[in-house]
Amino acid sequence: MIEFWFEFASTYSYPAAMRVERVAGEAGLGVVWKPFLLGPLFHAQQGLTDSPFNAVPVKGKYMWRDLARVCADEGLALKTPAVFPQNGLKAARVTLALPEAARPAFVRAVYTANFAGGALISDEAVLAGVLADLGHAPDAVLAKAGGDAVKAELKKNTEEAAARGVFGAPTFFAPDGEMFWGNDRLEQAARWSRKTSTRPIDMKVDAS
Amino acid sequence: MIEFWFEFASTYSYPAAMRVERVAGEAGLGVVWKPFLLGPLFHAQQGLTDSPFNAVPVKGKYMWRDLARVCADEGLALKTPAVFPQNGLKAARVTLALPEAARPAFVRAVYTANFAGGALISDEAVLAGVLADLGHAPDAVLAKAGGDAVKAELKKNTEEAAARGVFGAPTFFAPDGEMFWGNDRLEQAARWSRKTSTRPIDMKVDAS
Repeated sequence: MIEFWFEFASTYSYPAAMRVERVAGEAGLGVVWKPFLLGPLFHAQQGLTDSPFNAVPVKGKYMWRDLARVCADEGLALKTPAVFPQNGLKAARVTLALPEAARPAFVRAVYTANFAGGALISDEAVLAGVLADLGHAPDAVLAKAGGDAVKAELKKNTEEAAARGVFGAPTFFAPDGEMFWGNDRLEQAARWSRKTSTRPIDMKVDAS
Repeated sequence: MIEFWFEFASTYSYPAAMRVERVAGEAGLGVVWKPFLLGPLFHAQQGLTDSPFNAVPVKGKYMWRDLARVCADEGLALKTPAVFPQNGLKAARVTLALPEAARPAFVRAVYTANFAGGALISDEAVLAGVLADLGHAPDAVLAKAGGDAVKAELKKNTEEAAARGVFGAPTFFAPDGEMFWGNDRLEQAARWSRKTSTRPIDMKVDAS
């Protein structure tokens, strides 16, 4: 089992969401999908009030080019969003309002709407359309997404992410708690998870 | 040919320096070694006066763990330096004071001294020892490293890096100018460089 922690505003979470089940599956692993909010962590850890890719334009320019290469390699469409970053709060709550088995398809559809479809995923009508396309009853799901239980669960996820040392998205956790940050660490996280599911890792670092 | 831009203080430049010739060579490519100073870029672009890994401790903690995994995978020793980041100014100047053919071995030896040997690479005596071990005449090289021509060349490299959009190290450039940031992009940079040496890439991004 591999934990996949994602934030809907996060650019590299898009390719990660689209391929995490395939890569994990090739390693014989299931995926636990964990939405959280990165904004509060960015603010608490780095004092940021915007995406670091907006705060540091030279990094942002490179990120969009790198993301284009990553998506091209994966055969994923990419259209620079009109608004970046988008507010992923509602989409994250809707994810948690769905049964676990229904979450991966919804998450992929929302990322595709954001990064390939030019949609405003902060808009409840957009989320309702995604839900309807997937065969869900939008009104019922959105009502549950606005309830206290879902709000508390997302808050708890975000607090857990902070407590476990998360500072970006996507982040993966192996069963032994080992953390991997970034879409480009997914394969490594899967290898590590497979190994630690059978025997402990002997990897010492001399930090004397 | 692939350009390898590195800063001696940069942690991920260590594994990159140790493997760039092998990875480039497997793609049939030579390497141009380009030392530059990252500090002025960090300051100008991000207002930083320290390594971002010190400025944001939660990122620093992860970086050292990730670097340990990267080095373990490469069979490279890693000992967390007593001082981080170290001032790489003198080492960069010494690099440029050497004939081009002698630079790669010197650069690798300095990275190993810093990240595996616990040495203070800002110390001229340490650099003299590295030079002597490699069969160079330390006094003559250090004298040249302190001269105006070398100082001007390092300044020019740093200005060129900034002008070309560099914001971190290591950074690789393909012959067509495509930029890749990070040790984990080396294989991709080599593939890109090999392709662009024979035909143009058709990779369009819909940014409409």
